[in-house]
Amino acid sequence: MNIAEEFKPLFYPEAVAVVGASEDQQKYGRYCVQGLIDSKFPGPIYPINPRSPTILGLQAYPSLKDVPGKVDLAVIVLPNSLIPEVLLDCANKGVRGVVIISAGFKEIDDRKAGIELEGRIAHLANEAGIKIIGPNTFGMINTHANLDASFTPYLARLRKGPIALLSQSGGICHFLIPWLMNEGETIGFSKVVGLGNRANVEFADMIEYLSQDTETELIAMYIEGLDNPRRLMETAKKVKGKKPMVAYKVGRSKIVDQASLSHTGSLAGRYELYSAAFRQAGIISAYSLMELFDVSKALAIQTPPRGKNVAVASPIAGPVVIGADICESNGLKLAKFSPERQDEINRLIPPIVIRTNPVDLTYTAWDVNVYLEVAKIILEDKNIDALIFNYGYHDGYPPLPSKELIKLSQIYRKPIIVAIGVPMPIWGEKIVELQAHGIPVYPTPERACQALLGLVKYGEALGWY
Amino acid sequence: MNIAEEFKPLFYPEAVAVVGASEDQQKYGRYCVQGLIDSKFPGPIYPINPRSPTILGLQAYPSLKDVPGKVDLAVIVLPNSLIPEVLLDCANKGVRGVVIISAGFKEIDDRKAGIELEGRIAHLANEAGIKIIGPNTFGMINTHANLDASFTPYLARLRKGPIALLSQSGGICHFLIPWLMNEGETIGFSKVVGLGNRANVEFADMIEYLSQDTETELIAMYIEGLDNPRRLMETAKKVKGKKPMVAYKVGRSKIVDQASLSHTGSLAGRYELYSAAFRQAGIISAYSLMELFDVSKALAIQTPPRGKNVAVASPIAGPVVIGADICESNGLKLAKFSPERQDEINRLIPPIVIRTNPVDLTYTAWDVNVYLEVAKIILEDKNIDALIFNYGYHDGYPPLPSKELIKLSQIYRKPIIVAIGVPMPIWGEKIVELQAHGIPVYPTPERACQALLGLVKYGEALGWY
Repeated sequence: MNIAEEFKPLFYPEAVAVVGASEDQQKYGRYCVQGLIDSKFPGPIYPINPRSPTILGLQAYPSLKDVPGKVDLAVIVLPNSLIPEVLLDCANKGVRGVVIISAGFKEIDDRKAGIELEGRIAHLANEAGIKIIGPNTFGMINTHANLDASFTPYLARLRKGPIALLSQSGGICHFLIPWLMNEGETIGFSKVVGLGNRANVEFADMIEYLSQDTETELIAMYIEGLDNPRRLMETAKKVKGKKPMVAYKVGRSKIVDQASLSHTGSLAGRYELYSAAFRQAGIISAYSLMELFDVSKALAIQTPPRGKNVAVASPIAGPVVIGADICESNGLKLAKFSPERQDEINRLIPPIVIRTNPVDLTYTAWDVNVYLEVAKIILEDKNIDALIFNYGYHDGYPPLPSKELIKLSQIYRKPIIVAIGVPMPIWGEKIVELQAHGIPVYPTPERACQALLGLVKYGEALGWY
Repeated sequence: MNIAEEFKPLFYPEAVAVVGASEDQQKYGRYCVQGLIDSKFPGPIYPINPRSPTILGLQAYPSLKDVPGKVDLAVIVLPNSLIPEVLLDCANKGVRGVVIISAGFKEIDDRKAGIELEGRIAHLANEAGIKIIGPNTFGMINTHANLDASFTPYLARLRKGPIALLSQSGGICHFLIPWLMNEGETIGFSKVVGLGNRANVEFADMIEYLSQDTETELIAMYIEGLDNPRRLMETAKKVKGKKPMVAYKVGRSKIVDQASLSHTGSLAGRYELYSAAFRQAGIISAYSLMELFDVSKALAIQTPPRGKNVAVASPIAGPVVIGADICESNGLKLAKFSPERQDEINRLIPPIVIRTNPVDLTYTAWDVNVYLEVAKIILEDKNIDALIFNYGYHDGYPPLPSKELIKLSQIYRKPIIVAIGVPMPIWGEKIVELQAHGIPVYPTPERACQALLGLVKYGEALGWY
C-alpha cells in the first residue's frame, strides 16, 4: 500500500466516530463532535457514549461495534488507561485512522509507565494497520475534506489553502490561526495537524505523505524535540525540491528540554545541531510564529528569485530605508541599476529623492502610473532579480494596483513582494487577487523583507546560487 | 521662557492656518485642512490661498496677514523656494509654531543648495522665536488637543494615550498606526511627530519637552540618522529615570547611509556606536516597528520587575515552551519556586504536566479559579519577580479574568504580562481594562516575552540589578 492510501482513512474518511462524545460543556468530547458538525463534514458522524442516546442532536451509540455503518476515522477522548481497549474495538470495526486527544502517555512524570502505555498502543495500532495522530494532541483539520477532527470548533472556520502546518503543540496552532484571521490573511491551510506524542506518525511520515498531497504546496512545522531527528532529515532530503519546508524549532535555551519533555515527551536537543541539519536537509529555519507563517506563505505561492539582487521601491520613504537595511544586512544585494534603466527612472522622478536603488517615489505617489512605470523598468533590468513593492495608504492615494502588478509579474517572471501600510481587510479583494497570482502581501516592510529572505534561502537550498 | 512655553504654540495652538490650502484632490494642502476638520480641532482653522474664497467649506484668506484673528500654528504646504517669505509673514503675524510639509531642502541631490536654503529658514525662524516641525515631514498630531496638523486625515482617528512617537519618517507612522488599529490595540498616543529634516527642532529638543509633558508617559523614537548624536545622548541622560525612552535605529547596513541622506538629510552612521551610546544614555533599543511599539506599550503602563526571575504559566503548553525559551535565551531566569510554593502548586495540578517553572495548566483550563490560584501562589513567591500569563482561546474556556488579574497585580505589585491566543477585538473591553491598570496584553507569547525583556532592560538602565 502506498503512503497516500495509508493515510486516506485519517484525512479523507467517509465516516467518523467520536469515542468519548459528551454534551458536558467542560469536556473535550463535546467540542470534538461540535467541530465535525461546524466543519460541515459530509459523511456520517457517530458519537459513542454508553449513557446518552443522542449527543448534540446526533444519534449516539454505546460502543463502536454498535455503529451500523463502516467507520474510517475515530477521534478518541477517554482516560489514558482505556485507550488500548478502544484500539482493539477500532481494529475489529475496521477503523484505519485514529486521533487520540487523550494525554497521559510518555510525557508524564512517571515516565516509565507512560512510555510503556504508549508503546502498547503503538504496537496495537501497528498490528492493525491503524495510523495514530497523537496521543496528547488537539487533533487535526483537513480543510479540503471539510474535516475538523479536533477539540476546537472554531478551527472549522479555517480558510482552505496551500499551507500544511505540522505542530508538536496544539497551543501554537491556537495562537497562530486566530492571529492570522484577525490580520485579514487571505491565504489558507490544506491540513493542520497536531502531532502530539507521535506514537506511530512522526514528522517524517507526514512530510513524506504531504510531498505527494496535491492540495499542499508547502510544509510548515513547529518542532519542540524529535526522538529520531536523523529520520526527519533523511526524509526531508528526499522531499527537497518537491515541496518547500519551513521549520520553527524551539530550544535555544536549556530549560526547554525539560518543558518539552513534559509537553510532548521529547528532549528539545541541541539547537545548533538542528539548525545545521535543517540547512543540509533543505528545511528553511524560522525564528518566530510570525516568521514561520510569513515565509511559508511566500514559499507556498512563489518561486525563489534567480539571484540575490533586489530592488526596493516605495511611495513613502521610511520603508525604503528599513527595507534596504534589512535586505543588505541579511546577505541580499541592492544592486545598481544598469545605466540605461537608471536614465529612464531619472526621467520619471525628480532629483529631490533617492532614485538609485532603493527608489523613493514620494513625489509621484498621486500618480500610480509613474510608480508602475518605474516598477516595469526595474523588473526589466537584468541586474535585478526581485522587487519589494511598498505601497502606502493615504486618503488621497489610488488603490493598490493589483491587476497591473500581476501583469508585470507574469511578463517578467521575477518575484514581487508587496508591503502595504494599511489594515489588510481594507484591500481584502485586491490581496486575495494578488496572492492567488503568486504575489504575497504583508502589512509591514520588515515582514515583506523577511519573506523575500525566506525565498532566497530556499533558492540556496536548491543550489541555485 | 521655559521649554513648555516655547512649544505651546506648536502643540496647543488656539488657532491654526494652512498656508497652501487647496481643494485639489492631488494636493497635500487639501488633506492638511481635512485633517484639522476631522480631528475636531476646537479653534478657528484658516485656509490660506490667494485664489479661493472658501476651501472645504471654510472661509479662505489670500495671505496670513489677511487673517482677522491671531494665529499660533501655521501648516505650510508650498514649494520650497517660497518658504522663506512665508516665514517672514509668520513672524509678522506672531505665529510661533510652524509645520513645514514641503520637501526640497538638505535632503536633495544638490546638497549645497539644499543646506543653504534650510539654513536660511532655520535662521529666520530662530530670529523670530518660531519652532519648526520639518521641513520634509507629514506633520504631527497631538491627540489631547484634538490637533491633526498632518497631511493625513485618517490619523485624526488616533486613540488618545500615553505614548509619544517621534519619527524621522512619516511613512513609518503610516505603517505602524494602521497596523495597530487593525490589531485592535487599545493603547493610544499622546503626540506623534514627524521630525523630518529637523531644521530647528531635533530629537533632543523633543525629549526634553516631552519629559515635562504630563500627557506623555513614554517616548518612542524611529531614528535614521542624527547630525549631533552627542546632544541627544546628553539630553537623554538627563531625562533617564523621568520617562522611559525606546528607539528603533535603522542602519545595520551601509546602504542605509545613502538612503537616509536622501530621505531626511542625515547619515545613518555607525550602528554599533549608536547601540552602545543608547545603552549608556538609558535609551532602550528595539529592532523592528513591532518591537518598538510592544516594548513602548509595556514601559508606558508598567514599571520594571525588581529582579530578573520570571515565571511562565499557560493553560496550553506550546506557549509555555516558547516563552521559557525566549526568556532564558535572553538573560532572564525561570527561577525555581520555593519549596512551600511548589508544594501548594502540586496540590492544585496533576503530575501529568510540568508544574515547576514554567507551569503548564492544560488540565485545569476549564476552571479559571485554579489558574488564578496558581498565579497567586507564583506572585507570592519571593523567588519570582514577574509573571507571563498566557491565556488560550477555546469555545469552551471562560473569558479572560481581567478583574482578578488586576487585583493580583495590585496586591503583589509585580509585573504581569498577558499573551492571548485570540484576536484582540474579541476581548476588547477586558483588554482596555487590563491595560488601564498596568497589565499589557499581546497576541502571541513571543511578543509578551519581548515586552517583558524591554521592562527588564529599563530596570538595567535605572541600575536596579
